[in-house]
Amino acid sequence: MIRVAVLGYGNIGRAAEQAIVAAPDLELAGIFHHQDITADDKWLEAKPDVMLLCTPTREVPAFATIMANHGICTVDSFDIHGQIVGLRQQLMPLCEQHKTVSIISAGWDPGTDSMVRALLLAMAPKGLTYTNFGPGRSMGHSVAAKAIPGVKNALSMTIPLGTGVHRRMVYIELEDGADFRQVEKALLKDDYFAHDETHVIQVASVDELNNVAHGVHLTRSGVSGVTHNQRFEFNMEINNPALTGQVMVSCARAAYRMRERGEAGCRTMIELRPIDMLPGKEEEIIKDIV
Amino acid sequence: MIRVAVLGYGNIGRAAEQAIVAAPDLELAGIFHHQDITADDKWLEAKPDVMLLCTPTREVPAFATIMANHGICTVDSFDIHGQIVGLRQQLMPLCEQHKTVSIISAGWDPGTDSMVRALLLAMAPKGLTYTNFGPGRSMGHSVAAKAIPGVKNALSMTIPLGTGVHRRMVYIELEDGADFRQVEKALLKDDYFAHDETHVIQVASVDELNNVAHGVHLTRSGVSGVTHNQRFEFNMEINNPALTGQVMVSCARAAYRMRERGEAGCRTMIELRPIDMLPGKEEEIIKDIV
Repeated sequence: MIRVAVLGYGNIGRAAEQAIVAAPDLELAGIFHHQDITADDKWLEAKPDVMLLCTPTREVPAFATIMANHGICTVDSFDIHGQIVGLRQQLMPLCEQHKTVSIISAGWDPGTDSMVRALLLAMAPKGLTYTNFGPGRSMGHSVAAKAIPGVKNALSMTIPLGTGVHRRMVYIELEDGADFRQVEKALLKDDYFAHDETHVIQVASVDELNNVAHGVHLTRSGVSGVTHNQRFEFNMEINNPALTGQVMVSCARAAYRMRERGEAGCRTMIELRPIDMLPGKEEEIIKDIV
Repeated sequence: MIRVAVLGYGNIGRAAEQAIVAAPDLELAGIFHHQDITADDKWLEAKPDVMLLCTPTREVPAFATIMANHGICTVDSFDIHGQIVGLRQQLMPLCEQHKTVSIISAGWDPGTDSMVRALLLAMAPKGLTYTNFGPGRSMGHSVAAKAIPGVKNALSMTIPLGTGVHRRMVYIELEDGADFRQVEKALLKDDYFAHDETHVIQVASVDELNNVAHGVHLTRSGVSGVTHNQRFEFNMEINNPALTGQVMVSCARAAYRMRERGEAGCRTMIELRPIDMLPGKEEEIIKDIV
């Protein structure tokens, strides 16, 4: 059994715990909170092979570093696209030094969508891929909306309009005495919203709209060799934290196997062999799905 | 530049040649026919890093063995699903001995579809995947129809009906004096057709119907952790030989890179890292698509 622990117990930590318990070849080594890591050595005594970093993205680099220094593999869902290469550069020498594997940006985007984009590029090297997100809640946009003066709570839904263009539907619960028109004006000027079609809607309770559903509609039309009009499409409609937690857990298995083979280093999901994410013996997996 | 040669110059060999020429990091080391391999050493003098085996599937094991014995990596599109594990077992020790990489069953099914199926299993381990093929020509069924006495030429189209159930539309050109009803009766009894809904249609010319278009509609509804109703879909509408040739060429790049890293062996596509199939530097690919 591969011992997998969870650091951070929000939506994704809870989903990861469920995916560990459901897996035939993994056992839960423990669930830890951020402060547990500095408080004492209980998390080390739990002897995890892999620690899932279900923390806010900005805390990932620090915790990934601590784990590598202790010889523990990690999986995170670091999601700031522009900083992924930098994080990989930072963790690579640490992982190589301590012979660990750190799989970064493991979720659905970045993550499994990235693998689909890589696959489609291999199938039709020239052409255009569009990743359309939603309908689903954007954490970043919801937080940005909540930061506007007069906003008590906010939910920003991402609506796919095709060719990577998105509409923002922003549901706003006002603080007492706040003026909706002023809030709307401030929000539409905010850099998070200024570049997209944005609709602002006042509601009595944002909590009542809460829903972790999300989706992707990814398309590519491209050229294989000299043959144009090769058309591909990947769609999903999913529970967001459940999928993210599951993908992280499948990556924990891959990290363990890579370390067993002596392949230390920091990897994104397009650097993983799909078979390493699945339980069971190689030949049986090949027989079943190839 | 990676030197890639083509063995076998049918539809797929031609498409592979085009994909090699279009790739920024590959060069065509030569195009060879089956008899060239035993005739003289010109194919060896061409110094291919990778030989694409665009031969009939049944000739793949013999040619893959010859290439491994000469230290040349191979890619084939061996497509007899039930014999893939056996071919892998046969080639594995040879590849390990000669430090080569042989990527087998590289096409779209088996091949890229297998990678998608692996990915969906990692995302939702419990559930059902259905692979629906078509509309498109089935080579196996067309050959089986052509073998029926009285048939001059035949085209069997695979029509997807969902949940992995397919209809066969079989277009028959009769030999002079043959009786359509007798041919139809014999065909419907043939083991290739007896288990599917099959329609037999007499036409004046099968050649006029010829079309290398094909498609896939692959679906999965499954469970991530304890969360049901996670829904996924992968669709494509493609030129069949163009895609198969392109996938083989992208795998040639992967085979070369794996050998450069010292990873000798026989691999199916679910054992490849997607990034290895793409041209360019790792960090640039990660920056572009992760």
